[in-house]
Amino acid sequence: MTDQFSKKSEAWSARFSEPVSDLVKRYTASVFFDNRMAKADIQGSLAHADMLAAQGIISATDLADIQRGMAQISSEIESGKFEWLLDLEDVHLNIEKRLTELVGDAGKRLHTGRSRNDQVATDIRLYVRAAIDDVTGLLKQLRGALTDLAEQHADTILPGFTHMQVAQPITFGHHMLAYVEMFGRDAERFADCRKRVNRLPLGSAALAGTTFPIDRVRVAQTLGFDDVCHNSLDAVSDRDFAIEFTAAASLVMTHISRMSEELIIWMSPRVGFIDIADRFCTGSSIMPQKKNPDVPELARGKTGRVYGHLMGLLTLMKGQPLAYNKDNQEDKEPLFDTVDTLVDTLRIFADMAGGITVKPEAMRSAALQGYATATDLADYLVKKGLPFRDAHEAVAHAVRACDGLKIDLAEMSLDQLREFSPLIEQDVFAVLTLEGSVAARDHVGGTAPNQVRAAIARVRSQLA
Amino acid sequence: MTDQFSKKSEAWSARFSEPVSDLVKRYTASVFFDNRMAKADIQGSLAHADMLAAQGIISATDLADIQRGMAQISSEIESGKFEWLLDLEDVHLNIEKRLTELVGDAGKRLHTGRSRNDQVATDIRLYVRAAIDDVTGLLKQLRGALTDLAEQHADTILPGFTHMQVAQPITFGHHMLAYVEMFGRDAERFADCRKRVNRLPLGSAALAGTTFPIDRVRVAQTLGFDDVCHNSLDAVSDRDFAIEFTAAASLVMTHISRMSEELIIWMSPRVGFIDIADRFCTGSSIMPQKKNPDVPELARGKTGRVYGHLMGLLTLMKGQPLAYNKDNQEDKEPLFDTVDTLVDTLRIFADMAGGITVKPEAMRSAALQGYATATDLADYLVKKGLPFRDAHEAVAHAVRACDGLKIDLAEMSLDQLREFSPLIEQDVFAVLTLEGSVAARDHVGGTAPNQVRAAIARVRSQLA
Amino acid sequence: MTDQFSKKSEAWSARFSEPVSDLVKRYTASVFFDNRMAKADIQGSLAHADMLAAQGIISATDLADIQRGMAQISSEIESGKFEWLLDLEDVHLNIEKRLTELVGDAGKRLHTGRSRNDQVATDIRLYVRAAIDDVTGLLKQLRGALTDLAEQHADTILPGFTHMQVAQPITFGHHMLAYVEMFGRDAERFADCRKRVNRLPLGSAALAGTTFPIDRVRVAQTLGFDDVCHNSLDAVSDRDFAIEFTAAASLVMTHISRMSEELIIWMSPRVGFIDIADRFCTGSSIMPQKKNPDVPELARGKTGRVYGHLMGLLTLMKGQPLAYNKDNQEDKEPLFDTVDTLVDTLRIFADMAGGITVKPEAMRSAALQGYATATDLADYLVKKGLPFRDAHEAVAHAVRACDGLKIDLAEMSLDQLREFSPLIEQDVFAVLTLEGSVAARDHVGGTAPNQVRAAIARVRSQLA
Amino acid sequence: MTDQFSKKSEAWSARFSEPVSDLVKRYTASVFFDNRMAKADIQGSLAHADMLAAQGIISATDLADIQRGMAQISSEIESGKFEWLLDLEDVHLNIEKRLTELVGDAGKRLHTGRSRNDQVATDIRLYVRAAIDDVTGLLKQLRGALTDLAEQHADTILPGFTHMQVAQPITFGHHMLAYVEMFGRDAERFADCRKRVNRLPLGSAALAGTTFPIDRVRVAQTLGFDDVCHNSLDAVSDRDFAIEFTAAASLVMTHISRMSEELIIWMSPRVGFIDIADRFCTGSSIMPQKKNPDVPELARGKTGRVYGHLMGLLTLMKGQPLAYNKDNQEDKEPLFDTVDTLVDTLRIFADMAGGITVKPEAMRSAALQGYATATDLADYLVKKGLPFRDAHEAVAHAVRACDGLKIDLAEMSLDQLREFSPLIEQDVFAVLTLEGSVAARDHVGGTAPNQVRAAIARVRSQLA
Repeated sequence: MTDQFSKKSEAWSARFSEPVSDLVKRYTASVFFDNRMAKADIQGSLAHADMLAAQGIISATDLADIQRGMAQISSEIESGKFEWLLDLEDVHLNIEKRLTELVGDAGKRLHTGRSRNDQVATDIRLYVRAAIDDVTGLLKQLRGALTDLAEQHADTILPGFTHMQVAQPITFGHHMLAYVEMFGRDAERFADCRKRVNRLPLGSAALAGTTFPIDRVRVAQTLGFDDVCHNSLDAVSDRDFAIEFTAAASLVMTHISRMSEELIIWMSPRVGFIDIADRFCTGSSIMPQKKNPDVPELARGKTGRVYGHLMGLLTLMKGQPLAYNKDNQEDKEPLFDTVDTLVDTLRIFADMAGGITVKPEAMRSAALQGYATATDLADYLVKKGLPFRDAHEAVAHAVRACDGLKIDLAEMSLDQLREFSPLIEQDVFAVLTLEGSVAARDHVGGTAPNQVRAAIARVRSQLA
Repeated sequence: MTDQFSKKSEAWSARFSEPVSDLVKRYTASVFFDNRMAKADIQGSLAHADMLAAQGIISATDLADIQRGMAQISSEIESGKFEWLLDLEDVHLNIEKRLTELVGDAGKRLHTGRSRNDQVATDIRLYVRAAIDDVTGLLKQLRGALTDLAEQHADTILPGFTHMQVAQPITFGHHMLAYVEMFGRDAERFADCRKRVNRLPLGSAALAGTTFPIDRVRVAQTLGFDDVCHNSLDAVSDRDFAIEFTAAASLVMTHISRMSEELIIWMSPRVGFIDIADRFCTGSSIMPQKKNPDVPELARGKTGRVYGHLMGLLTLMKGQPLAYNKDNQEDKEPLFDTVDTLVDTLRIFADMAGGITVKPEAMRSAALQGYATATDLADYLVKKGLPFRDAHEAVAHAVRACDGLKIDLAEMSLDQLREFSPLIEQDVFAVLTLEGSVAARDHVGGTAPNQVRAAIARVRSQLA
Repeated sequence: MTDQFSKKSEAWSARFSEPVSDLVKRYTASVFFDNRMAKADIQGSLAHADMLAAQGIISATDLADIQRGMAQISSEIESGKFEWLLDLEDVHLNIEKRLTELVGDAGKRLHTGRSRNDQVATDIRLYVRAAIDDVTGLLKQLRGALTDLAEQHADTILPGFTHMQVAQPITFGHHMLAYVEMFGRDAERFADCRKRVNRLPLGSAALAGTTFPIDRVRVAQTLGFDDVCHNSLDAVSDRDFAIEFTAAASLVMTHISRMSEELIIWMSPRVGFIDIADRFCTGSSIMPQKKNPDVPELARGKTGRVYGHLMGLLTLMKGQPLAYNKDNQEDKEPLFDTVDTLVDTLRIFADMAGGITVKPEAMRSAALQGYATATDLADYLVKKGLPFRDAHEAVAHAVRACDGLKIDLAEMSLDQLREFSPLIEQDVFAVLTLEGSVAARDHVGGTAPNQVRAAIARVRSQLA
Repeated sequence: MTDQFSKKSEAWSARFSEPVSDLVKRYTASVFFDNRMAKADIQGSLAHADMLAAQGIISATDLADIQRGMAQISSEIESGKFEWLLDLEDVHLNIEKRLTELVGDAGKRLHTGRSRNDQVATDIRLYVRAAIDDVTGLLKQLRGALTDLAEQHADTILPGFTHMQVAQPITFGHHMLAYVEMFGRDAERFADCRKRVNRLPLGSAALAGTTFPIDRVRVAQTLGFDDVCHNSLDAVSDRDFAIEFTAAASLVMTHISRMSEELIIWMSPRVGFIDIADRFCTGSSIMPQKKNPDVPELARGKTGRVYGHLMGLLTLMKGQPLAYNKDNQEDKEPLFDTVDTLVDTLRIFADMAGGITVKPEAMRSAALQGYATATDLADYLVKKGLPFRDAHEAVAHAVRACDGLKIDLAEMSLDQLREFSPLIEQDVFAVLTLEGSVAARDHVGGTAPNQVRAAIARVRSQLA
């Protein structure tokens, strides 16, 4: 009996009359990128073999041979000695071929009751599950670092912007906590995604299940899956989880891009709200004075990369008939690159949070430009009995007058202010200070320093 | 005291020296699309007014006035008598202006302690929450309809395809259940998304919270929100939920596109596995014989529309500094169109499922082409003791011989089969029948008819 | 003989046994959006009828009837009296039905030798061609307006930024001309796209051409097309031109988004480089002092919309088998919305350019922060004989010293400067001024005022 | 004087107080992907040095040193001996550092009058220009191969499909030529894109031009550029050409995906119109009978990859302020991968065209299903005087009758046919044959064999 693998350089199987052309071999091979799933592949094969033996489909000796062979292969891979061959297409055949070299017929029995279709689906899920766990840990680190920063600046006042115009005074701690919320939702999304990742396709074989008396629940338990996939056609053709993961990653990068945009603007000399430590910056090949916030800029740019992968994966699956098609091989590179981008970016941001120097003076002086307490004045008038819409209009007049005089609202005299409403009295000046304004927004979610501290405590308990 | 609204045609407020140009007014107005949120807007305003009164910020009389005014506005909108004005920009100002006309100062007091930024964020969340509930119901209908079809054809055999080549026999019921699984995951994703949608931004005011002693938890309870948004900056600038909703919708459309592709191919005359009732098809303006599967074709095309909206929303949020920017107004049209597309498509698919006529003869004859039971023969040899890889190779030889003889494996004589392996005996013919093949895949997720029936029972209990 | 149209509410044609369901009718109908191609549809039909008559396929009387009928239909449409019916699916059948009502059999002969497939392809090309001509005109207006602004500020100095850090002094005129270049490339791309749009699909009929002795070149000439499409299958299924148009539109929006970002940042109070006239801005419903740059913000947001349409159209065409499929009906809405967005945005930007007030003082003072002339000092040293890399390093030391002393390079004494290189002499101070720095970049493409003026002259001659 | 490069491991320049962290170094470095531009980088540097010497900015000796050093570096790179260092960030600094090691001060003078910003922009343009030339050649090869196939099958009849339903008979040659047209438009688009790629950014320096008396036109001529970029700010920040290239590539992949879809369907056993040579196919790890069309499947999948890169690049540039930002470094990987995907796919498709075996029998028998000549019958009635719409309706009745009788139109007797119209006479049978139908579509772009041959001649003259 001939060996299927040893003839692959001649023809795919006895069914074929000529070998795959070299160009095609290179075009269709995945081994040089899918070998990053080697660990998952071996893990899955061991669980499969364990079940085959438990069900009496292979012998205990076969199982022992497979375990011994896989142990050696693992160590060969870890030590970099494993030789990945293009001729063997992918990670699965490379490992199976080596196993057969090492342990003979037991290796040829490993593929009983499975197919590469359910095998690769299992491998990717194991890979994505591990990636989710990594990302979840990094999101926690980043949230922790931002919360530390928020705590240091729970009282530091800066202008809050809408439309990039000064709106109302807020605290820097409150601003940082906005990102803590965003990254918190990201963590929730990954947790939800994990539920759908963590279901076992193995046992679906090529598309219809297998004629062997397999025990899928045992395999699921061995591998830590919550459930099995309940339809074999769906199990081998489903890549929802890859898309859902990449969609969640895209939202992380959206948040990263927003934070990056702010860090870059804040570090711009006209704004000057922060400095970023030199170790996160680089200079210019021509302008000796430059110190550039490379990390947030590059992270902002990497947003496009992840969005692109999401779009690529969606396009990939659009209109694919069931069950498995070769198109699906294209799921891996975008997925791997998404994981790498996410992991690197979160790690560096968690690190960089500790390298941000806040400049409270610059923030404060900016908050004094732009009539940041105008809303406070309107609210004051409402509390004195004016309907809100009338109060709004009165203050708009006052602001226009200040603009002409080049002074802030707080710099007007009482008489000047009273020209815009006779309801204004001496107590108005308390509401026109930055501190008064900030402290007054004292409800859940508001910017008042004690609300910021309460929010920090809440986040800390989540992270604990 | 001048009225802010009545002067809008002159200038935005007293702060402005010239009115907005007509071109700008048209470019920046949203009222002609955001008025579809009118019901949500009124609902939110009533909950806000109720809280303002409970907290003593407005009087009971004001509340009653507002309630009376809003009741009239609701009825004007429902009866189509409400006049939406471009000059008043958006749904919020249109309604507030009318309220003030109807009830005077109470109307001007409604906006106390809130801003359009948190108001619109609340409206969209109410809108998306309702959309999720609609979509969830429709997914259930569609799953039910497909499950009915699966039940009718739990035993109907057709060839399962991989790479569009005949792979192994499966049952049509099993095939339908693959889609039931997909749409089931979609429902899970919307349920997860709903958790994050159902948090209240109101009370965040423009960006920093408000100086009034508001009770956000009361408003959340009135509106059926699970929680409040815990950071005001985040609450007014967050559009994650719109992106997450659209990403979930994109996956629904991915599944719809796959199913559509199959329906179209199955209805193509060379395949002829199904017919779709005339009421879902149209003809040609030039070819009198044509009957075209317009609905699945158009649905497949609409996939692009939803993917496009997802990409549009992601691009929208990329790199936006906090807090609210006018860019965010662009979130609505893609979101509304996504909801419409999803709702219409799911409804029509649920309906069309009942209009599919299955042609078991054509399916069966197709299953007899392409050596669909080759794997069964390989499995048979494995059970006789041959390692899987050797069995695979032996069967490949047999298939090649059949190909030359233009016969199926089951049409070979025992002697002919034994040329490929001496292990083959008379009992082989049982495994080479379509029914034998299908029945043998008898484990959770496999295509055996009794597994299909078990899966149907499982789905029915979920849908109950 | 029954009339095909009058029975549409019963069944599509005699081939069908039941009418299209109402839900399907609504789902598949396009008349409520494709009626915007009515003018193109009539134009195409008239050219087709003219050719049919010239070739003797219809009589001169038929042609005259068709022309008379179409004239009346045109006036009905223009006056808003034309009744568009959902039952008649699309713009084509609505017009043809009305024509037959008006002129009888001649109307029924119009469709001889064509199909809706080539008809709609012709209509869209006529529509896109007109859109390209509009957009080209608007790009010219915008470039003109920016060139005017550039001319007013050919000498106005502001800091050039890289990485949002001050890099080197430039002129505002030079900065505006960067956008003039971008929009110039956009115009080139539309001109290139127009060549491929302007080819006639009519005569391809459903997919294979027609058995009537048509004269496609005559129709092409009548309609102003440069050529005919040379393959009928391709002609009815090609939507490249829609994608190419939308890709070109996406680049316009990329440029608009970049310019918007700058306008928004420049108008932010900490930067304060410009003001935008009140008529392009709006205020806040809660903060009386706000004046927001709505137009550039919204335009930046609309970038996502156009990117989304591009992605939608690409997805639409992915994997479609030849020839026409119903999916293609989904090409219109994204295309129409892209045209609207582009036309509105370009018009408003051309207008807004005249409403930008430049604040030279703020720009100048910003240019004096950040050691903008450090490169000039390095270049000075190179001219004195130091290799560039050594000069770069020497200046980096000087900048660091200035940073400690909180002074600019130009504020150092000669002795202080000489500590970093003995090559520095009294003439150094000329190169450290902003004017000296700018004037020294005096080559094609450089920022020197006389180069800016030369560039303006070059653009003016292009626009003439 | 210290050497800037040798200190990079300590700090970026004297301006920095700490070195870049290792994580940041890895995150921000590009050398391991941008070194594929090494050849372009050296080419650009040599042209720059030549100009510096011609203008007297560096000495003839310096130029000779630089040329000598670069020759050695080129040979080191080609032989794989060049050591790329992460510490030196990118291809530019790696080469410049090595040059300085080899030739001393001349190396340090090379960067005079330029910056990495204009240097990298020049490198990418050289790279993309070369890629366009490669792709153009491959498109020509593919069009040639498809034209050869078309010629062999100018008379081979198959059913033309619309909506995947049989529409009218066409020839296989005509079908292939539809793709020849598509790939022809692709070539046009790359030619148009090349015009905008082929403009020289060098001389723009960091963003504003340089103070040295450079001659940009000389550099442009040396490097074969058609023109210089006319605005320095635009030149360093423009990535339009990368987006335009990727958009053109996306359309190529759209066409490839459509052709792949058809090849896959045609090779499916129920259709069986073609076979693809074994060397382009692979088998299954579990189903011994399988022969899968891997190449078109994978190519169809790779469409998503290229669409994703387009979306990634558009996102990258959205909202970037001028001039250069670090984000732009993210342009390279998607661009490189797009080039690789395009080149590999076009090469393999050009090759595979010769491996397609057409099965005329299967095509012919499919054309006889589905009443493909119904339009011919309608046209016949029109020629006998019936208005087209009435003819269409009469034929629909005939088709319905055939459907009941399970016969084709051509199988009806004259009497049977005359029941649907008394205008039908004996000569009708000539128009109901497949050959008659095809031959009758005899005008430019039609499917008649002599039109196919004329179209082939036209393409051949384009390709010559």
